[in-house]
This record gives sequence, structure tokens and C-alpha cells, in this order.
Amino acid sequence: MTTIKDSVHDYIELHPTAEALLDTEPMQRLRYVRQLSTVQLVYPAANHTRFEHSLGVYHLASRAVDQLDLEDALADRLRAAALVHDVGHGPFGHQTERAIERHLGRHHDEIGWLLAETELGTVLEEQGIDLDAVAATVDGRGPLGELVSGPLDVDRMDYLVRDAHHTGVPYGTIDHARLIRAFRLVDGELVIADDSVASAESALIARTLMNATVYRHHVSRIAGAMLDRASERVLADGVADPDAFARLTDEELLGVLADYEPTAEFASRLRNRRLYKRAAWARREDVPETFVDLSYDRTRALEREIADVAGADPSAVILDSPGTSSSPESRARILVDGEPQRLGDRSPLVAGLDACAREIWRLGVYAPPDVLESVREATVDVLELAGDPAP
Amino acid sequence: MTTIKDSVHDYIELHPTAEALLDTEPMQRLRYVRQLSTVQLVYPAANHTRFEHSLGVYHLASRAVDQLDLEDALADRLRAAALVHDVGHGPFGHQTERAIERHLGRHHDEIGWLLAETELGTVLEEQGIDLDAVAATVDGRGPLGELVSGPLDVDRMDYLVRDAHHTGVPYGTIDHARLIRAFRLVDGELVIADDSVASAESALIARTLMNATVYRHHVSRIAGAMLDRASERVLADGVADPDAFARLTDEELLGVLADYEPTAEFASRLRNRRLYKRAAWARREDVPETFVDLSYDRTRALEREIADVAGADPSAVILDSPGTSSSPESRARILVDGEPQRLGDRSPLVAGLDACAREIWRLGVYAPPDVLESVREATVDVLELAGDPAP
Amino acid sequence: MTTIKDSVHDYIELHPTAEALLDTEPMQRLRYVRQLSTVQLVYPAANHTRFEHSLGVYHLASRAVDQLDLEDALADRLRAAALVHDVGHGPFGHQTERAIERHLGRHHDEIGWLLAETELGTVLEEQGIDLDAVAATVDGRGPLGELVSGPLDVDRMDYLVRDAHHTGVPYGTIDHARLIRAFRLVDGELVIADDSVASAESALIARTLMNATVYRHHVSRIAGAMLDRASERVLADGVADPDAFARLTDEELLGVLADYEPTAEFASRLRNRRLYKRAAWARREDVPETFVDLSYDRTRALEREIADVAGADPSAVILDSPGTSSSPESRARILVDGEPQRLGDRSPLVAGLDACAREIWRLGVYAPPDVLESVREATVDVLELAGDPAP
Amino acid sequence: MTTIKDSVHDYIELHPTAEALLDTEPMQRLRYVRQLSTVQLVYPAANHTRFEHSLGVYHLASRAVDQLDLEDALADRLRAAALVHDVGHGPFGHQTERAIERHLGRHHDEIGWLLAETELGTVLEEQGIDLDAVAATVDGRGPLGELVSGPLDVDRMDYLVRDAHHTGVPYGTIDHARLIRAFRLVDGELVIADDSVASAESALIARTLMNATVYRHHVSRIAGAMLDRASERVLADGVADPDAFARLTDEELLGVLADYEPTAEFASRLRNRRLYKRAAWARREDVPETFVDLSYDRTRALEREIADVAGADPSAVILDSPGTSSSPESRARILVDGEPQRLGDRSPLVAGLDACAREIWRLGVYAPPDVLESVREATVDVLELAGDPAP
Repeated sequence: MTTIKDSVHDYIELHPTAEALLDTEPMQRLRYVRQLSTVQLVYPAANHTRFEHSLGVYHLASRAVDQLDLEDALADRLRAAALVHDVGHGPFGHQTERAIERHLGRHHDEIGWLLAETELGTVLEEQGIDLDAVAATVDGRGPLGELVSGPLDVDRMDYLVRDAHHTGVPYGTIDHARLIRAFRLVDGELVIADDSVASAESALIARTLMNATVYRHHVSRIAGAMLDRASERVLADGVADPDAFARLTDEELLGVLADYEPTAEFASRLRNRRLYKRAAWARREDVPETFVDLSYDRTRALEREIADVAGADPSAVILDSPGTSSSPESRARILVDGEPQRLGDRSPLVAGLDACAREIWRLGVYAPPDVLESVREATVDVLELAGDPAP
Repeated sequence: MTTIKDSVHDYIELHPTAEALLDTEPMQRLRYVRQLSTVQLVYPAANHTRFEHSLGVYHLASRAVDQLDLEDALADRLRAAALVHDVGHGPFGHQTERAIERHLGRHHDEIGWLLAETELGTVLEEQGIDLDAVAATVDGRGPLGELVSGPLDVDRMDYLVRDAHHTGVPYGTIDHARLIRAFRLVDGELVIADDSVASAESALIARTLMNATVYRHHVSRIAGAMLDRASERVLADGVADPDAFARLTDEELLGVLADYEPTAEFASRLRNRRLYKRAAWARREDVPETFVDLSYDRTRALEREIADVAGADPSAVILDSPGTSSSPESRARILVDGEPQRLGDRSPLVAGLDACAREIWRLGVYAPPDVLESVREATVDVLELAGDPAP
Repeated sequence: MTTIKDSVHDYIELHPTAEALLDTEPMQRLRYVRQLSTVQLVYPAANHTRFEHSLGVYHLASRAVDQLDLEDALADRLRAAALVHDVGHGPFGHQTERAIERHLGRHHDEIGWLLAETELGTVLEEQGIDLDAVAATVDGRGPLGELVSGPLDVDRMDYLVRDAHHTGVPYGTIDHARLIRAFRLVDGELVIADDSVASAESALIARTLMNATVYRHHVSRIAGAMLDRASERVLADGVADPDAFARLTDEELLGVLADYEPTAEFASRLRNRRLYKRAAWARREDVPETFVDLSYDRTRALEREIADVAGADPSAVILDSPGTSSSPESRARILVDGEPQRLGDRSPLVAGLDACAREIWRLGVYAPPDVLESVREATVDVLELAGDPAP
Repeated sequence: MTTIKDSVHDYIELHPTAEALLDTEPMQRLRYVRQLSTVQLVYPAANHTRFEHSLGVYHLASRAVDQLDLEDALADRLRAAALVHDVGHGPFGHQTERAIERHLGRHHDEIGWLLAETELGTVLEEQGIDLDAVAATVDGRGPLGELVSGPLDVDRMDYLVRDAHHTGVPYGTIDHARLIRAFRLVDGELVIADDSVASAESALIARTLMNATVYRHHVSRIAGAMLDRASERVLADGVADPDAFARLTDEELLGVLADYEPTAEFASRLRNRRLYKRAAWARREDVPETFVDLSYDRTRALEREIADVAGADPSAVILDSPGTSSSPESRARILVDGEPQRLGDRSPLVAGLDACAREIWRLGVYAPPDVLESVREATVDVLELAGDPAP
């Protein structure tokens, strides 16, 4: 088998199917989509791509498939799904996904159309692997779909370790080798052997700490919010066709934004790291419930209202009120005396981690440096904030 | 300055005082006392010593002293205390400390006598460093004593990272560089800057996970309990003088045990890893409150009772009912809006971690393989265990 | 001081000048120029950028400046030069530098014009740092210019370690901390203390092994040769202005190539990793001296001749006959009994490494897969190769 | 299969034979024999043992056996030999081996007697593995004996990487995973595939650099020479039986030396790191050929002569004139166009490395600090040294 050298897993062996899938345009494109999109604006070394991550997920899936001793057809399908699981991501990954969903009505995990329309489908068919089954697996459905997309999937295992390696932040170091050795099948479902509770908990903890220090870093959130507004604009104005938009690379998108006058300033700000700043950065307890986890339309309306009160241009105010993070790992199942139980029921840590997630939650309002003060005051007014939201 | 190459901190620079202290017998002895005593019976690579750990603690103290910009005299004292903080440990560190305390009436952090009686004192005096102040610092008292022995001290920072490096377990990787950069002085007391809550939490988490997977591994607990019984015997029988006993190295103690007939079998079992096994391994909820955290005398009495019921030799039963672990890091103070607060009050994780510690608590009863069954039944009987205590 | 987290050096402290320089467009552009250009086509994790490398070089320069205890003005200049040393690089760094030199008549280390024309100059002037002196330092001239660009400079130290970290290849791991501690000034020149010969040799060795396994990997050489031909075409045809060309990012160049019909196929081949293959891959001893280290014009003429003999399209043949690598590190000076000597005179390894470089030298001829055979035969003919050049 | 966590190879899977072998006294003894004996006096973290190294060698042998797809019986034998290959080492490994050889007439690789006399033999017989074949393999003889003891064996691969990990010195990092993947069988002999020359060279280089910085560090050489003299004394005086001596642990030997008056001072000096110093440290070109690589008897005679001239006690002078290191890796065979060739014939680096070994060679004469000057002068006299041998 061909091998590829990886910075995280050392040598990765490629089955012939994987080699053929790698040679397709949708997979090669992932070389130009950063795994952590704008996090590199904070952690300059975070330039790893969805391509190398996809190889890592494939590698862990191969190990899991060996550990579970699966029959060949299922093993082939799971490995293929692991390798292609990210092809549906748009430029800058999660940071444009809501704009794409609004205009395409499709989540990035729905990749059936991509398999059907591109070489990926041809390769899978040549290898006798069912396209629909692969698409379902990427979406977490079908036999062992949870291995690729579930509460403790190989996707998560790879990205926690890889993101830690590339940011230099030590919190993502989970013991993935032990977790995969702890995989068991009970009635066709994936569970974790009960002597590995600490390993499973470590994955929850790693994500919680990586959220706090990396994934939800305010600089990356600001850049992401700017990308969302600019992407919305070019999609709404018909500058880019939604299907083509979804298949741009990161820098191709920056090019599109730079070439369209209404988004050119955002492009320049992103490219040269002259981002909006935080006018407001409010804790959960200071934000009225009605302003938490806002819809896109509501967000835009409130932005206009804040801009109006502040006497600022509407494009100068970006409101970013995220949902409360779920803790998917808590749904992972652990074998206790031979019976699967939810990790969340078994581990007293989960409640603490959920509280922790609530603690680091922030509502942000971003604006250019010259209008920060007025936007802050307008925000307190419009959103009825309880405390001072200065960052 | 002389430098020493360390596997964890790379180059460590030695001030002249440190060089002179290193050349003393009490410091050189620490080359022969393993940091993790019997954990190497589980993790074969865990052979690092209290000597290299002491260098690491000294190094982190030097960094902290620079970060806090302390005056020279205090800086000298803190660095010296950091370097010598472990000289009071007996052979196998924590695993003989209770036997030593019973016979010497002294905790390993009380090192005043050692400073006074050995070259350590001479060196300190030559350098104009007050012996009593150093001894107080090692005990966590006096100006900035908490830096060396406190809720988030440099001792803890070094051992979490070092133990992770040498066991290969990834959970101890805290961001000590960031934590030390976050040190601030408020009214003469050590606090953590408030943008570093995640780093402080990570130290709590690291210890909790290291407890679960390394420090409280049952094989190491069994070996430790066997060492305690054997140490007690040679001390009680006057085979070894308590003061001399406390200054043995790990293997010198094994030699002492091997040369005394009543402890020779224990020595051979420890040396060749033919340990007792778990007759009982009971969860917290299955053990009546009265049998949790037992005194030494009560433990011995219960052991005899269990042996009697089981028809076994008294030396064939070892009962090990630990206290519930406190969470010292929760007392660390974090700056919140300029005011120090307890980390435990600030971080929602702490309650979860305390629950977690309770979850991994186990009462153990250990015995030779041939009497496991009868000792297990006798244990259920004598300790009125609620559930099946088979491991 | 502000700190940045780096994957290689952990925390990097930024002086105010460095912060201001980082905020300029020429420095931010380096976020989009990969340090190893097309090596990521072989080592998928090699996506680190000249931006993070520049931070690393700055960091090592700061350490060296402290070690040598330099006066402030010189220290400021050296740190600034270290930070900006790569701003002159075009897209894909070394892989377009010859095309740029042909059209601009300027080497990437000549950055005086960039300092004068961009914000970089403004910032330097505000900080009272002389532009010309910085430009000279980047070019290896002036006081301690060799620290930034010399036989054992901090540039080399950073990239060897960083490239090893990101490719996962273990050969680049030199002991840069020890090398910098070994820096001494003798009559104003930089030398290495004589107990550090092994550290200095390790840098030579690291580069030799990295050449063999990473830097001169044939896939990257093929991609580089294709980039050179395509760049030449757009420059020669006036599609891109040379000055503007030199300031493109990697992916902006791919965009330019894709948008111009004569280079569109090359762009697509590079983007989707459908590269030319090796028609010939000839050892040094099989290539007549006259065909080693060819000028650009001679190369193009021979390519046409080979294409002609092979009956292939001229654009289907790429000839790549590199020069023999010099061994710059051998000129580094080591203190021997207080006298500086060339490392090459002191170390018996250097001759072996030079022979090694000759051993891995290869002349390559690249072509599309469908004409490989005929191009190979034509190459043997035209270049009078002594042996079979099949790879 | 049972797994063990290793700090270098992560999880190591144990076949049942390996588990049974590990449970024997000769294997458990290796927990108390340091891999790098007295190197910990220079690199305080170098406390790893021959036990964990043996596990590592076993692990790499398992991988090699899989790579070569060997039949079961041969695979079992090779894995067993890899695991037990170090049981013949005396206390402090290489540093007492010459004393043991003088008195036992047996090299540490001759382990037939140990297999026959201990549980090791019983276990091997139970598993149907031939004792003599295992003993031959450990000695590098028989089918694929070179895998365990040969120019590029798994022993070397493990120790280079492990010693680098534990000293923190970066030079030992070879790409063992790639080397093992490059293993091929040609006519029953082990060769390296020809695209892996750089990996094979890196092992030579690693050893050369580790020699210079770690293995031949003067402090460790001094301690080793002191151990040799003291060991000789207790063996010559009949204080310890040679067979029993060879099975002591490191610290048991220190105990034996401390308890015998004529060696008590050496024991105290070693234990408290109060070593002899270098009276002379002479380069190869300064030492007459007749004084290079001296026999034991000649060494003792010259020591007495030097002591006599210096007016010092005979025990105060230790002469240490090592042989010139061979370069065993150069005999490794590489496939070139399908034909095995010696790496030394293929790689131009080997000559350079041999010259390098000659360059770092030193003759040492060691003495207590108070007689250094007179011993140095006497040494120049007696050994007719050409230059000043002050270190």
C-alpha cells in the first residue's frame, strides 16, 4: 500500500480506493480550505487543511474498522466515508456554512449531490461502493454511521489532536489510540469499554478547553461574522452562484469578495487583519433570553436598530449571538456491567462541562474602531443588557 | 550560568546557589528516589526521579520569580526552597510517608531538621539564605510560600507535565508557561490573571485525569500498601532507625526488606512484580461511611478480622480505604474585575471534578492469588459491603 | 509585551516595533505564502507559512541578541531585519524566484525598494530604525548581518526545525537553543564556541537529510518547474506586471495562471495534482558536464530539441538541471583554542556531506504521462546520457 | 492482546509468550538496570531502563516480522529474542562488561546459560520455542539474527530514539517506522529498499552525534572507568561471585561496593557525584599509536607508572584509552538496482562519519581534584603526549 507521512499520525497507509478518491478534484480542493479557517489570525501556525485532516480521519477509521473486525464491504464504505466526509464544506468551512445553507438549503454533511455529480461518484462506483450508503454514513446514518459522525467519532478525535498540534495549545491531546482500542460492538452499535471512561471524558474536556482557548476565540469569531455578512451579500446579489460558491477555496472567496465593490472593504480587512473590534462582549447572565441564539433575519433587524441608535452605517454593526453549545460527546455510550449507558449519565464531569460552556458563552457586537463607543452604548440600549459589555 | 539539559524544560540555567545545593548528599540521593515510586510497575517508562523533578520545580520557580519581578533576597529564597522541596521524602515517596509519620511524627514537608543537620544548611548559610525561611517556604508558609506549596504551585505544574511525558499518558499537558505568565501579586499574594481561567482549570482537570489513569492505578496502590505494611514491620521491630529509614533510597529499602526474614517475601514480590491481587474493589456507594478513610489501627484490626473469617494468615490481607481526595487547586485565586476570587467559586468545572474524584474512589482489599475468593467473601461480611466487590 | 503562541517555539514575545511591523500589508501577505510552496503535494501537512516562520526567526534573533548582550540600536535593527527578512519573496517563494529575477533583475533578499515603498518603511522610521541598514542586514551585510543571513543564521535554524515539525520528518531537529547559547563575538564577528561543534554539524546534517527527503523531492521539483514555466509565460506575455507579480500570494498566482488560456492547463494540473511525470531522472555521473547547471535560455533550447526528437509539443517537455548545492554552513566559524576556524576545516563531516549532496543530485526531464517513453528516448539522445534515466 | 503504554512507541501489544517472559525474574531485574547507566549524572532525565528498552525492541521486532511476512515459528523466535536480548547485561550495562568478561569469560550477548538456568528457559519450552535458536539470534547468528543484532537492528533503532527522548538531545530521532517499512528479504537476508538510503544514513548520523554528546560524555566515561576499577577489585578479591555479580542491579552493585572497605570511597564518590576529574584529555593525533586501545594489564601497569612519577597513590590514577569505534551500520545492505550493496560503499557519508569518530576520540586520565596537576605532568611524560592534554 502507498503510505503518506502525516505530522500527527506518522505514516498513513492508503488502500487503493483511498488513492483513487484522493486523485479527484473535490478532494484536492480541500488542500486549499483551512481546517480552522480564520483561527490562523490568532494562532499563526494554524494553517493545517481539511485535506490532511481528512487523511487523519480516514486513518483512524481504518484502525477502528480493524479493531471492530468488520466485514469487507462495510469496512470499505466506512473508510471511504471517513475520507470524503468534508467535501461538502464551503470556503472557510463553518464560517460560511450558514450563508450557504440559507441560499442552498443544504447542510455540508449532505454530500449525496457531490458524489453524484463529480468524479467521486465514478470512483466509488468503480470500487463497487454504494454512493447513497456513503452519503448516509457521512450524515451519521446507517450501519456504524456514528463512527464517522456521532458523539465520539473519528472526525472529532482527529481534529482535537490535530488542532492542538498546530496551534501549540496543549489541551486537545486525547488518547485516541486507547479510545479506538476501547471500541466495542453491542447489538450492532458502537460503545466504549468501561475501563476507558477517563479516555472518553478526556475528549469532552479537550473540546471544552479548545472551545475556550481556540475555537471560540473572539478574533476568529469576529472574522467569521465578517465573512458571513460578506458571503451573504455576494450570494444575495447574485455575484456568485450558490453551488459554485460552495466549491470555492478560502482564498478564491477572498478574491471574489475583493472584486465586488460592496464587499471589497471586508475583503481587505480580512486579508490584512484589520478587523472590526468588540463593541460589546456580554456574558450569558447579562443578556435577556430573547436575544440569545438569534435567527438571521432577527439579527439583521437588530443590527440596523443598533446602527440607527448609534448614528452609524448599517454595515458598521455586526451582531453575533450564538446558540448554547450542545455537548454531543455526552451521548456517547459506555459499557457498564455489560450494559450501554450514556456517558452523560455515567460521568459526573458532564454537568460541570455544560456549565463551563455556559460560562464562556458571549454575545458579541463588532464594529470599526472609530465607532466602538457609540455602538456599545446603542447595544446596551437596544439589547437591554444588564451589565457593562465592554470586553 | 551552568545549564542542565532536561527532557521537559530543555535547558535549565543554574544560579551558583543552586549548583552548590545540587552537590550535597541529600540532593544527590533524590537521583535514586523515583518520582512515581511503584507506578513503573504499570507504566514501565515512569522511572523519572525526584532529582530531575526538583530541577524542573526550580526552573519554574525561577521563571515565576522573574515574572513577578521580586527583590533578590526573596527570589533567592524561593528558588532555593523550590530546589530542595523534596529532600524530606523517604524511599518510594508517598508510599512510605505514613509509616514514617507514625514513627517519626514528622511530615515530609517539614525539612528544618534536614537543613540543620546536613550540608544543605551549610550551603544556604554560605549564600546568606535563612534556613528557617526556606523550611517555612517548603511548608507553604511565609511570603509567597504558596508558590512552592500551594493550590497552584510550581511543584504541581512540573509533576503533571513530567509525569505525562514519562508515562506517555497525554492528560497532564497543562500550559505551565501561560500559567506562570498569568501570575500576579495582589497585596503580596499570588493570584492568576482573569484571562487565564482555562489554563488554571486545565491543571485541575489534568490532576483529576492523571489520578484516574496513573496516580491511583490499582497495581500501584497494591504495591504501595504492601510497602507500607513491610515498612511498618521493619520500623516497629527496630530493624531500621526511623531517621535512617527516611533517608534510604528506593532500592536500599528493598534491600533492607529483603534482608529481614519477616519482610523478605514482600520484598521478593515487589522486586519481581508478583503482587497481591484485588480481593475487593468497592465503589464509594457500596461502602458504609464508617469504613471510609480508616486510621491505621482500625485498618489493622479489620484486616485481622477479615483474615480470621477467611481462615487466612493475617499477613495475607491488606485493607486500603483511602480518604476522599480534596481538590487543592480549587482554592487558587483568580482575578475577576480586579478582585481575587477562589477558582472553585469561579469555575463551574470544580464541582464536576469533585464528583469525578468520588466516582473513581475505591476501597481495596488485597491478598495473594490463592486466597482471593475466601478473602472476598470475608470482606463483604466484615465491611458490610452493599454490592459485589469483585474488580 | 504581547505574546503569540507558536507551534515550534511556544510563546513568542513581541517588542512594540515587531507588533507595528506585523500590522503592515507586506507582513500580513506572508500568511498566504507557504514556507515550503509545493512540498505540501508530497507532505500534506506542510502548510506552514512564511508568516509563522518570520515570527520564529524574529524569536531566535531576540534570543541571540540577548545572548550576545548587544547595544539597543543594533539589537532593534537585527530583530526588525529578522522579522521582515522574507517580505521580498514572490508567490511560492523559491519556485518563482528565478522567473522574477529574469524580469525584475532583483533577488528576493534585496528588499530596500519594499521598505521604501510600503508601510514597512513608515513603521521603521517611526521607531528610529534605519531602512538601509535593515535592508543590508537582510542581505547579510553590515554589523552581524550574518546572524540573519549567513552560514548558520537564525533563518536556517528556524526553518529546519519548523519544516521537520510540519512534515513529520524527524531529520530537521537541531538543537537551536544550544547553538544560540554557543554564539560568541570575536572582533565583532559571530563565532560558535568550540564545545558546540556537534551542534553546528547537526545543522549541516539536518539540511543534507532534509534536502534528500523533503526539499528536493521530485514531486515538488516537478511542480516547481511547471510553476517556473507558467510564470515565465505570463511575465513574458505581459499578463502580469513583474512588480505586482512579485507581490501575489500563492493562490493569487494560481488564479492568474488559470485565467490566462496559455497557462490554464498548468494551473489546473497544479491545483488538482495532475503533474507531469519524470521522463528522465539522471545521476550526476551519467550526465555530461556541459548539461549540468544550465542557463534558462540553454534549457529552453534543449527542451525544444528534445520535444522535436520526441515528436511532442514543446510545452510537453520540461528540463530541470540544477546546480550543485553549495554547503553554506561549512563557512560558519568555530572557536578552536580561541581562534576562529571554518567549520569545514574543522569538521571531517563536511566533505562527506558534500559528497552526499552530489550523490542525491538528479537531472530531471518531466512530461505528461502519455509521452513519457518518447521523451525519455529523446532525452538520452539529446543529452548523451550514459545510463538509463528511468526513475 | 494485553497492551502496555510506552513513552516512545505509545501502545505495545504483547503476545502471550511475551507476557509470560516478562513475568520472569531475569526480565523484571531489568527494571533496575538503567539503559544509559551513569549518563544520568550528566543528563538527569536519563533514567530509562533496559526493561522499557526491551519492550521497545520487542515492539519493533513485531513490526519487522509483520513487514517481512515471516512464518509463525521464525516470528515467535525473533520476537522472543528481541524481548530477552539484554538479560545478559550486568549492573550498569556496558560499564561493567569488561570486568565481567575478564572474570566470567563470557560476553553479555551469550545468554544460553541464562536461558537454561532460569525461568526464561521454562517459559520458552512451554511455548515450543527452541532455547538455542533464541540464544543464537541474540548473538546475531542464525536466520535473521541480524534483525536483533546486526548493523541496522531493532535494538539500535529503539535505543537511539529512546535515549534522545529521555536525554532531551534531539539527535537520535531516526525514522524507524520508515526503516522497518524498507526492510526486504533477498535470499533470506535482510536488506533495505533503495529509496530509503537517507533513513539508513540517518541512523549512522544519529549514533555519531549521540556518541559525541551523550554516550561518550566525559563525566559518564569517568564514572564508568571508576566502576570498572571498583568492580575488578570486588571480583578479584572474591567479595562477589562472578555469576552473582553479573545478575546484580545497578544499586545492588553500589551497595556491594559501599560495604567493602577498599571500594567504599569509590561507591561514595559515585553515589554523591564526587567523581575524579580529567587530568588529561588527549586528542588522537597527540597520542602515540602504542598507547591507543590498551589491554587491561597494560593499562594497570601504565597507571602505576604514572602514579609513581606523580607521587600519587596508585588508586588515584585511572587511564582510559578506548579503541576506535567501528561503524557497524556501514555494513548494512541496501538494494541498488535489485542488488544488495554495503551502505558504506553506497553512501559518501560513511567516510565522513568515520573521520568524525576519530575526531571525537579522546584518551582520558582521571584523578582526584587535589592531584590533577601532578598526574597531568606525569601523564605527558609516561605516555609521551605530543600536545597539552588539559581538558
